Amino acid sequence: MSRNERVIATYLVETPYSLERAAAVIAGEQSTGTFTAVPGETDRLKELHGAVVEGIEELEPLDAPTLPGAKPPSGHDGLYRRGLVRVSFPLHNFGPSIPNLMSAVAGNLYELRELSGLRLEDLELPPSFAAAYRGPKFGAAGTRKLVDVYDRPILGTIVKPSIGLSPEELGQLVEKLARAGLDFMKDDELNANPPFAPLEAKVKAVTEAVERAADATGRKLMYAFNITGEIGELKRNHDLVVRSGGTCVMVSILSIGLAGLAYLNEFSEVPIHGHRNQWGMLTRSPALGMSFTAYQKLCRLAGADHLHVNGLNSKFYESNESVVRSIRACATPMFGGYETMPVVSSMQWAGTAHATYEALRSVDLMHLAGGGMLAHPDGPAAGFESMRLAWEAAVQGIPLEAHAASHPALRRAIEKYGKG
Amino acid sequence: MSRNERVIATYLVETPYSLERAAAVIAGEQSTGTFTAVPGETDRLKELHGAVVEGIEELEPLDAPTLPGAKPPSGHDGLYRRGLVRVSFPLHNFGPSIPNLMSAVAGNLYELRELSGLRLEDLELPPSFAAAYRGPKFGAAGTRKLVDVYDRPILGTIVKPSIGLSPEELGQLVEKLARAGLDFMKDDELNANPPFAPLEAKVKAVTEAVERAADATGRKLMYAFNITGEIGELKRNHDLVVRSGGTCVMVSILSIGLAGLAYLNEFSEVPIHGHRNQWGMLTRSPALGMSFTAYQKLCRLAGADHLHVNGLNSKFYESNESVVRSIRACATPMFGGYETMPVVSSMQWAGTAHATYEALRSVDLMHLAGGGMLAHPDGPAAGFESMRLAWEAAVQGIPLEAHAASHPALRRAIEKYGKG
Repeated sequence: MSRNERVIATYLVETPYSLERAAAVIAGEQSTGTFTAVPGETDRLKELHGAVVEGIEELEPLDAPTLPGAKPPSGHDGLYRRGLVRVSFPLHNFGPSIPNLMSAVAGNLYELRELSGLRLEDLELPPSFAAAYRGPKFGAAGTRKLVDVYDRPILGTIVKPSIGLSPEELGQLVEKLARAGLDFMKDDELNANPPFAPLEAKVKAVTEAVERAADATGRKLMYAFNITGEIGELKRNHDLVVRSGGTCVMVSILSIGLAGLAYLNEFSEVPIHGHRNQWGMLTRSPALGMSFTAYQKLCRLAGADHLHVNGLNSKFYESNESVVRSIRACATPMFGGYETMPVVSSMQWAGTAHATYEALRSVDLMHLAGGGMLAHPDGPAAGFESMRLAWEAAVQGIPLEAHAASHPALRRAIEKYGKG
Repeated sequence: MSRNERVIATYLVETPYSLERAAAVIAGEQSTGTFTAVPGETDRLKELHGAVVEGIEELEPLDAPTLPGAKPPSGHDGLYRRGLVRVSFPLHNFGPSIPNLMSAVAGNLYELRELSGLRLEDLELPPSFAAAYRGPKFGAAGTRKLVDVYDRPILGTIVKPSIGLSPEELGQLVEKLARAGLDFMKDDELNANPPFAPLEAKVKAVTEAVERAADATGRKLMYAFNITGEIGELKRNHDLVVRSGGTCVMVSILSIGLAGLAYLNEFSEVPIHGHRNQWGMLTRSPALGMSFTAYQKLCRLAGADHLHVNGLNSKFYESNESVVRSIRACATPMFGGYETMPVVSSMQWAGTAHATYEALRSVDLMHLAGGGMLAHPDGPAAGFESMRLAWEAAVQGIPLEAHAASHPALRRAIEKYGKG
């Protein structure tokens, strides 16, 4: 670790004080953190360990605070100033450790009454983090090799109904879809190791179904088993999947924590499919929490080979601009690598391929459709084919409707899903 | 696990739709979760696995959405309806597993465009959770035994300056404060195992200092070593502390996740001091995230013997009413036990004892003061004495000023800190 390495955090700050004052409070809270001078707090100590305000970019102020509880200074003019504030932290304060990084760059800052809004917009991490965290072992290249698909997105679906299928019913569904040619399937995030369908029975039924289909088609479906659970279960569940011939494990990252993800990545032998349910809690307020730009870096350090990003025109609140930003963030190299595949899902079907390709200009993603593939009027195989055709058209610059004219699976998909 | 056990989640919901419609969407998203009917979703499956809306309590509506991205229905009257919605989930959907519980009761709900606000206000958990999670091993009774203090709060401080002391300087500070009679000290959350003061050196310096002081005073200070780190470090760091004679470990719960906390609780031999930095991110928006009432239940299941709750009149945004709610929530038994000690801190001094006692009507808490004890004009011993006196007065119903008249340490504290 170099002595001069620093972490730079960029915050969106909203405050009834001046931005300079708010920035100084943020930097001070995260180095000395008490309300009255204490012995031992020397200038030398502050120089060695203090956080430093590196820059402030002022934005339009607001007339009212976004979050409650800010205490304006006396003589407050009623304005809540907003700006992007860059603060640097000496790495030697905490070392290249995600858990301790978070206590420093987030910590108590969200609770400061000098602020009416705080959002961690970006994190610039020094090279020591790359030495400490190996990151994804598979990424796009390793995942493609396992599914044997190279020139288009990996196309797949989510088990539906998400809850309630017995292991036997699940096995039958998987075999049918694997025979239909799908590349990928995943458990729903609601369904990991429930009493009504224990993971062990699910793994057996699914891996046998996948092998039977592979014998027939010559290709092996990748199935992401949801192994979310307590720390001790992660190893047990992972080993069960790998021992049974499974080729992917899925976790709800916010359920096991980034520490749980990094732990899994220490011994995982198959790609880790990172689901981000609960993420909305950290990001939906525009003046609180974190941006996905910052969060996805931590997920990649901790080992997410695949990472969910929502989809264009999804059922969720997120704007398409925000989804595009997330996809592009995942596609931006970190430390020259740390490759993750963005996973695009929610209300997806063939009709969302063109816009997704325009956003990414690459096919290194997973494109998942639940109903948008399985409920195709001619069945799942046609649903899968419709998405393959849509991506073919997108990459070749052919309009969707034009391609549909000569391809019935695509035309039927447009008839069913294109009216919304 | 009984077949009929259910989890009940209470949400604060804000929506441009009717509350009934929003509640149905919430229940549906967390059981089937796709936008178009799929094969296999039978009535029997819905009955066995569906979440059920148990009740709706309407609150005052708003004229504007709190969070962005809600898509109002056509003909929307401009009102955003608010209410408390109780939804029950069959436990057999996910089992008594906190990680999978969170995917069910939080999951993708925060991102739904039918909602302009969602906050998990409370969780009622069935008995199977008690069978699955042993909870705190020490709580108030076990902690009191270790510090030998029974009839008043455990009084202590936080290492200041929080960053920068060498292990030798830290040892000297700890010895001085232990000799001054303090019950408890803790590392700052910013300071776990940094390169400039490795945990191993800190543990050695601090435990030796504590033993030297104990030889002189006959009482052993409890020091909470911040062992926050990756999963593998938790065991290593814990064992280092215990092997060296340390009697408490501290973790930043949001840094290691509830799964990390539950993992630590599997093998911990000393009380776990739970710090909640980063919590503001999950709770400061009144229409997003979680209430501490819900969160503290999960922390207690996972094993937090001590749990930070802010303090009255703190430096943070949180209202005193909210702090009191948190303290009382921690003091409410779960499954007949699961005892945690609320840790009151931030801008605390002798003057905050009376109001804190009125809120709790109990002395089963830790009351921590940084500057409010260490910067006492007559030194830390007088600072500690001032807090002990204040609690004595509070419990006996003597006004602070009256008690101060005959107790100089208290009088001097009021002179210094009582002017704010």
